[in-house]
Amino acid sequence: MDTIPVAREASDELNDIVEPNDEFLRATEEAEDMPARRRALVVLVSDHHNGAEDDTDRLMTELLIECGFQVDAVVRVKSKKSEIRQAIETAVVGGVDLVLTVGGTGVGPRDRTPDATLTVLDQEVPGIAQALRDSGQACGAVDAVVSRGVSGVSGSTVIVNLASSRAAIRDGMAALPPLVHHVVDELQTYSVH
Amino acid sequence: MDTIPVAREASDELNDIVEPNDEFLRATEEAEDMPARRRALVVLVSDHHNGAEDDTDRLMTELLIECGFQVDAVVRVKSKKSEIRQAIETAVVGGVDLVLTVGGTGVGPRDRTPDATLTVLDQEVPGIAQALRDSGQACGAVDAVVSRGVSGVSGSTVIVNLASSRAAIRDGMAALPPLVHHVVDELQTYSVH
Amino acid sequence: MDTIPVAREASDELNDIVEPNDEFLRATEEAEDMPARRRALVVLVSDHHNGAEDDTDRLMTELLIECGFQVDAVVRVKSKKSEIRQAIETAVVGGVDLVLTVGGTGVGPRDRTPDATLTVLDQEVPGIAQALRDSGQACGAVDAVVSRGVSGVSGSTVIVNLASSRAAIRDGMAALPPLVHHVVDELQTYSVH
Repeated sequence: MDTIPVAREASDELNDIVEPNDEFLRATEEAEDMPARRRALVVLVSDHHNGAEDDTDRLMTELLIECGFQVDAVVRVKSKKSEIRQAIETAVVGGVDLVLTVGGTGVGPRDRTPDATLTVLDQEVPGIAQALRDSGQACGAVDAVVSRGVSGVSGSTVIVNLASSRAAIRDGMAALPPLVHHVVDELQTYSVH
Repeated sequence: MDTIPVAREASDELNDIVEPNDEFLRATEEAEDMPARRRALVVLVSDHHNGAEDDTDRLMTELLIECGFQVDAVVRVKSKKSEIRQAIETAVVGGVDLVLTVGGTGVGPRDRTPDATLTVLDQEVPGIAQALRDSGQACGAVDAVVSRGVSGVSGSTVIVNLASSRAAIRDGMAALPPLVHHVVDELQTYSVH
Repeated sequence: MDTIPVAREASDELNDIVEPNDEFLRATEEAEDMPARRRALVVLVSDHHNGAEDDTDRLMTELLIECGFQVDAVVRVKSKKSEIRQAIETAVVGGVDLVLTVGGTGVGPRDRTPDATLTVLDQEVPGIAQALRDSGQACGAVDAVVSRGVSGVSGSTVIVNLASSRAAIRDGMAALPPLVHHVVDELQTYSVH
């Protein structure tokens, strides 16, 4: 399990690496006006790391910041049920509001992400996974439509499985924010009592 | 468990309370031409009763009558698994065609409606819950999208969980009737044999 | 369990029986350019056989050929869990890429197709069943919307339950191909290793 050091906010360090476009900068500025950012952690599940070519970590970080989250870390794990489970559990114990996994949602023998996730969930929230499949259907991300990905809650953390194609990530991250924020709101209401 | 006395049909008593609009009266008249109204019972699940302000009972009664049901009763129960279960079971034994629950479908510790409902169901009909989430997505009722609500059949009764927001109820009740009537048709075909 | 002899490709024999329209012939020709057709088997689940009037076998064969499959057989079984299960298992052992069942997805006591299918599946792929319900919603095939049908994988075979109405079959077969081909692609990737 490798933890990739990422900017907790859109830091200068991150901007040195990526070429930030206007939209990204604007979203970042707007987001900075918000009272308190919610904390997210990304788990990239993959047996093949393409090194420099694979910028899923950067993409996920950008998209999460755009929709009001700060990214605590991007963690890379092998497609092994125990590794995936451990990465999610560590994040839940650490108190992040959202864990997003990417990859491992297909039907192959190394696709264990949904199975690992189910062992951690206190209760499923099937509507988030349903919305991700719907948005895949609308945008032609077939791997998102046939994803076995699940979604739900563990402690006060929302956990969602994304399929790994570029389209699945982009479409998924367009559909997710209002749903995740609603569930986090609910969880925070109850933890206050 | 309080049973709220409601009009079994769109009675004068009900009309005294609400200001019936033309559409409502027309729907009622058309419905009166139908051979036999199906019987529905509503279970309102809530720990906080806002008294006079909360007219969910009236809204549910209106919407059910508009789509061809008579309302046997609106029952109010606390968000407790045993109470919800008992209210549903009583309705099933009483032979109503449809039990609609409202509320208790979120992720909080007092959201037990889906869990209570599952213990009563003979078989799930997941497409009704799926359609409710879809219609929530289409109309911006986020609590309907992330609802843990289930749907299915117990004996010859269809049971469906609705989320509690105004939008979730209105959108849900727009999507439900053809689906529920289809399943009730199926159940009646088999009970005749 | 009756196996209906069908053309493995769009043979002359089949064309003698049906009146092929232009669209059908064009699709067949195009399909013949493809390197290797995937193999499908159809299981018709029904207690009432209408004989000559029931041409579901021909319809399924046509639609499958149009979307790039060859049809190994159309098997007719009674709505009995053991018969349905046996028909699916035989097809899986025979190595077909796709088993489509038709019928037995409702809530009646003789609707056992989903239950039989679940006993055969290694893992569910809920997004295919979800897409079938969505397409039923879009096209007014209510039996497809409230279908208890499931979808998934057994060995290297994709298995999908369709509802039995004409609309459910046509709409379902419009939505299925890209999803099924994607999952078969995945399965073949892994079986090569």
